[in-house]
Amino acid sequence: MKTAFLGLGVMGYPMAGHLKRAGHDVTVYNRTPAKAAAWVAEYGGASAATPAEAAKGADIVFVCVGNDNDLREVVAGPDGAFAGMAKGAILADHTTASADIARELGGLAAEKGLGFLDAPVSGGQAGAVNGKLTVMVGGTDGDFAKAQPVMAHYGRAVTLMGPVGSGQLTKMVNQICIAGLVQALSEGLNFAKCAGLDPNKVVEVISKGAAQSWQMENRVATMAENKFEFGFAVDWMRKDLAICLEEAKRNKAALPVTSLVDQFYGRIQARGGNRWDTSSLIDLLARP
Amino acid sequence: MKTAFLGLGVMGYPMAGHLKRAGHDVTVYNRTPAKAAAWVAEYGGASAATPAEAAKGADIVFVCVGNDNDLREVVAGPDGAFAGMAKGAILADHTTASADIARELGGLAAEKGLGFLDAPVSGGQAGAVNGKLTVMVGGTDGDFAKAQPVMAHYGRAVTLMGPVGSGQLTKMVNQICIAGLVQALSEGLNFAKCAGLDPNKVVEVISKGAAQSWQMENRVATMAENKFEFGFAVDWMRKDLAICLEEAKRNKAALPVTSLVDQFYGRIQARGGNRWDTSSLIDLLARP
Repeated sequence: MKTAFLGLGVMGYPMAGHLKRAGHDVTVYNRTPAKAAAWVAEYGGASAATPAEAAKGADIVFVCVGNDNDLREVVAGPDGAFAGMAKGAILADHTTASADIARELGGLAAEKGLGFLDAPVSGGQAGAVNGKLTVMVGGTDGDFAKAQPVMAHYGRAVTLMGPVGSGQLTKMVNQICIAGLVQALSEGLNFAKCAGLDPNKVVEVISKGAAQSWQMENRVATMAENKFEFGFAVDWMRKDLAICLEEAKRNKAALPVTSLVDQFYGRIQARGGNRWDTSSLIDLLARP
Repeated sequence: MKTAFLGLGVMGYPMAGHLKRAGHDVTVYNRTPAKAAAWVAEYGGASAATPAEAAKGADIVFVCVGNDNDLREVVAGPDGAFAGMAKGAILADHTTASADIARELGGLAAEKGLGFLDAPVSGGQAGAVNGKLTVMVGGTDGDFAKAQPVMAHYGRAVTLMGPVGSGQLTKMVNQICIAGLVQALSEGLNFAKCAGLDPNKVVEVISKGAAQSWQMENRVATMAENKFEFGFAVDWMRKDLAICLEEAKRNKAALPVTSLVDQFYGRIQARGGNRWDTSSLIDLLARP
């Protein structure tokens, strides 16, 4: 299949690579051209000077950029993907962005006779590299049926959640569940330390029961040692939580703990922990 | 082995039953004598009119009552277990109580030449009935070595966490991790409902990744349908959180989200949800 991939960050770079290795025709675009050149040197394929040019003739155009504004520029800007796509082509957006912009771009796509899928992912850089991402998709059955087998090259689970916007909303639920959970885990492990218990030993015992979580099983070792220079960065989490809190206003969904944890992440940013993993919430308890 | 079991509530009743079925000599005591009579009718063994009488001649005396005050009365009161126990016997307390009272009773036991283990459990009524509890123990290696094989009749995992008090502190970590986690899950699922997503479908997708938790996998179906008439009651959770918050003051451990969730549980009590499962936090978001 002829595809384009726009945005070669830590996620997009390996995701586009999976498409190429699976035998698809891939033309890449990246704001910093050197990265596109590096990608072509590694995988073959072609690079283009603008999103519109990359998108020309593609059956599916994949996007994975930073935020709503980047996305609008790359997709609907003067040299954006929409300007190059032919009728019937599909734009599949892997950016974690607002449901609003998904609906805005979905509407624009429909006017132009294009398909649109919002398809944020979870699983992190490791998931992108190993091709084991979870992909949460919003869009029509028809567009999903065409894109799903292609996304399967980097997605272990690719699921249609509902109409355009539903992928983003599902990702928001994911981030909301994680934020308060990591804070609770941080309070528990910090309490354990303060009480003179060995956090690793405590978790070995309590992770067999109702307190168990992926975060508990995968983060306790590093949290016990105050190691945060890895994983999902606080800056990215705060971007995602801002989207959640904005959407919650519209839907009148109360997020008392999520908004509090968002504030805590703000304090971690203020002390320079922008690139720290989300589990660094425990540092704020240990060194208030 | 000659044992006594004091307190035949929803946990103690089946726990004592496991000991009897495993061939141990069990004398029971319960504040309401009818329950002790029912237990003897079901399992055999004997019942006694006071804790002291039940404890007479026992190698290990097990206790599982409601709170610190009940515990002090049953163990160290005029007719308490200590009054009946012979030197060298061990008192093993399965009550979820404060680390303070564990140390207080541990100190009294030492003065009398008795052993003491604080050994709160997790796993709920089902775990007690199926003999699959997690038992978190504080005490000496010697006392633990004697009691562990007996506790194994109802404990799938029986672990020594440190000196007297460590069992209670470990249980506190467990409850702290659960409180904020259930609130985060509630905010996520309520958000999903408000956004028009199917919470069950969302969880099917996100439980494959970093948002996964035992609570997510075991509570979403009932939370999606606002069913709370089962499980671990809000009243009990609030009792446990009070112990955590008190202990945290002593240890200077910050529990900002735990204390907030404790307040939420207080509001659920105020609307009559005392016996509801802890997952009823979502009801407070849906009907503020």
